[in-house]
Amino acid sequence: MTLDPSSPAEAEDRAAEVLSRWASPAGPALRAAVETLHPWPARMAAYSFGWADRDGRPVDRRTAADGKGLRPALVLLCARAAGAPAESALTGAVAVELVHAFSLVHDDIMDGDERRRHRASVWRAHGVGPAILAGDALLALAVATLARAPGPGSAAAMERLSATLIELVHGQAEDIAFEGRPWTGPDAVTVEEYVAMAEAKTGSLLGCAAAVGCLLGGGSPERADRMALMGRQAGLAFQVTDDLLGIWGDPAVTGKPASSDLRRGKKTLPVLAALQAGTPAARRLGEALAAPLTGEEDLERARALIEAAGGRRRARELAGSCLGRALDALHAEGASGPAAEDLAVLLRFLVERAR
Amino acid sequence: MTLDPSSPAEAEDRAAEVLSRWASPAGPALRAAVETLHPWPARMAAYSFGWADRDGRPVDRRTAADGKGLRPALVLLCARAAGAPAESALTGAVAVELVHAFSLVHDDIMDGDERRRHRASVWRAHGVGPAILAGDALLALAVATLARAPGPGSAAAMERLSATLIELVHGQAEDIAFEGRPWTGPDAVTVEEYVAMAEAKTGSLLGCAAAVGCLLGGGSPERADRMALMGRQAGLAFQVTDDLLGIWGDPAVTGKPASSDLRRGKKTLPVLAALQAGTPAARRLGEALAAPLTGEEDLERARALIEAAGGRRRARELAGSCLGRALDALHAEGASGPAAEDLAVLLRFLVERAR
Repeated sequence: MTLDPSSPAEAEDRAAEVLSRWASPAGPALRAAVETLHPWPARMAAYSFGWADRDGRPVDRRTAADGKGLRPALVLLCARAAGAPAESALTGAVAVELVHAFSLVHDDIMDGDERRRHRASVWRAHGVGPAILAGDALLALAVATLARAPGPGSAAAMERLSATLIELVHGQAEDIAFEGRPWTGPDAVTVEEYVAMAEAKTGSLLGCAAAVGCLLGGGSPERADRMALMGRQAGLAFQVTDDLLGIWGDPAVTGKPASSDLRRGKKTLPVLAALQAGTPAARRLGEALAAPLTGEEDLERARALIEAAGGRRRARELAGSCLGRALDALHAEGASGPAAEDLAVLLRFLVERAR
Repeated sequence: MTLDPSSPAEAEDRAAEVLSRWASPAGPALRAAVETLHPWPARMAAYSFGWADRDGRPVDRRTAADGKGLRPALVLLCARAAGAPAESALTGAVAVELVHAFSLVHDDIMDGDERRRHRASVWRAHGVGPAILAGDALLALAVATLARAPGPGSAAAMERLSATLIELVHGQAEDIAFEGRPWTGPDAVTVEEYVAMAEAKTGSLLGCAAAVGCLLGGGSPERADRMALMGRQAGLAFQVTDDLLGIWGDPAVTGKPASSDLRRGKKTLPVLAALQAGTPAARRLGEALAAPLTGEEDLERARALIEAAGGRRRARELAGSCLGRALDALHAEGASGPAAEDLAVLLRFLVERAR
């Protein structure tokens, strides 16, 4: 398989096409599952997926551009790559997407995030208590969906999914704990700690998607391990790319305010890597971060210092090396054919996207 | 098997003895499971179980008197009643108790309950965001624990547990919705709606405990269905007894303020049954409930009207008939021997307790 270097726009177009082919089979099954919930959490769940406005009226939203459908597509592609029809992993695709939605709904409450996908987050639209219930409903439905999956791989898939739930909690706990820790000094968050957090918080669910698809498609535990590694590394690359876009992304494209992560003092990889460089720029960055960055001038200076200290470069290198490991894991499978090529397109998109 | 009519104190003593024998094997397994979590949610989980104070220092609390251990005991007893060693269902006992703890932690946030088991609830002690995380951790751990359960009954047990999670959400959604509905008129909450809510919110998990124990103990699906019915009916009897204690219970014994449910305008069975009686007392009660009950005089009058309209009697009758159906389901098993006798003691305790 060959893949030309491509621009973010090209990577996005190709990925959108792959996503629309591979994620769409999961859509009706996901909606059917949500409709089995109590009407109130079902309405909040529909809002969280972008199917309905806050009053439950159907809305039509583009899905591919904001990366939605990535996880179900990964599940179904990995089943296909294991030689099974994609439908064999449909329950897994639904379950993984439900877990993703659960984690967004609850994390937005914990993190105080008021916006999600260009709209009010669920807790801002419906209230904290109801949003807790909506998240619980999504998680319960995920487990119930996978528990009903037929086939010999379903017990192993459930073990992977539930271990991932524990990892997600671990990653979220670390992420919150990072907020209370300093930028510099002996208690500063290290790059290694950040990588472990991001792997738990973002990598684990992409790894789970790949492993669950493989297992439900009849793949061996060893093959599922390699697919999990592929997904984890891709997830880490995805998160680091998110961090880069959170500092240098175009607000008109990302839908988030410029430098929003810097404004909020969020501990992201480019900043942590810059601070660890030990250069004069790193020291000046540490001094600049001692007070909140408010004005545009502060932010511009911080961005320049992060770049001068090599934070942007190191983040890009890490995303690139994670992508490389993900592609290596895919190729180590000896996987070929359309499913493997489509997987490679998706993996590259995670790093090459502009939003 | 014969059981003499007994006083609440005697029922409690016998139940405490049964609980200490049957719930205690699950204790170390539960603690070991919690210790695998990230240290922060693990500390909050330990607080929620009463093993530690809010700073994580170990505390020694009596467990039997407040009904703790009921669900693990039910799991292990039902495995034993199915002819298996109790240990065969240990993972189920741990999983069910973790689900119970999860639902208390999240429901206390949604309901704004500040006290739980004579202490600050988890969200009052640790904050709303951390309490959401603690609940998520408990639920994730429940699923992961059962997913690792060995034996042929474990897949069916997971199906029961996950269906119960959906029911718990359903019951909680209804319970919250009831708060916004009127006491009287065409939109009033009916006794039938209340029973459906209580069965989902309280009955489902006790039914799940019994079925999971039976299945992990090698019992057939049909036998598990009967055990589930026993647990559901017992759970409903438990909830209605809770409602009675919430109005007429002795604050020194229950640990809750006198008439706390009446003060908060909570829709409980004795009140709903009284309002449906259609008598002059029922009408006067409806009028009295139009404004919040604040003073001791208001509360005393409301209690008298509920009693005069037959609400207390109907609630006792419902608890009694649910207990009867639970005992019938147990006897329909042809179950006998020590496990069946201990089960009967526990079922009776749920109705005859004073707290």
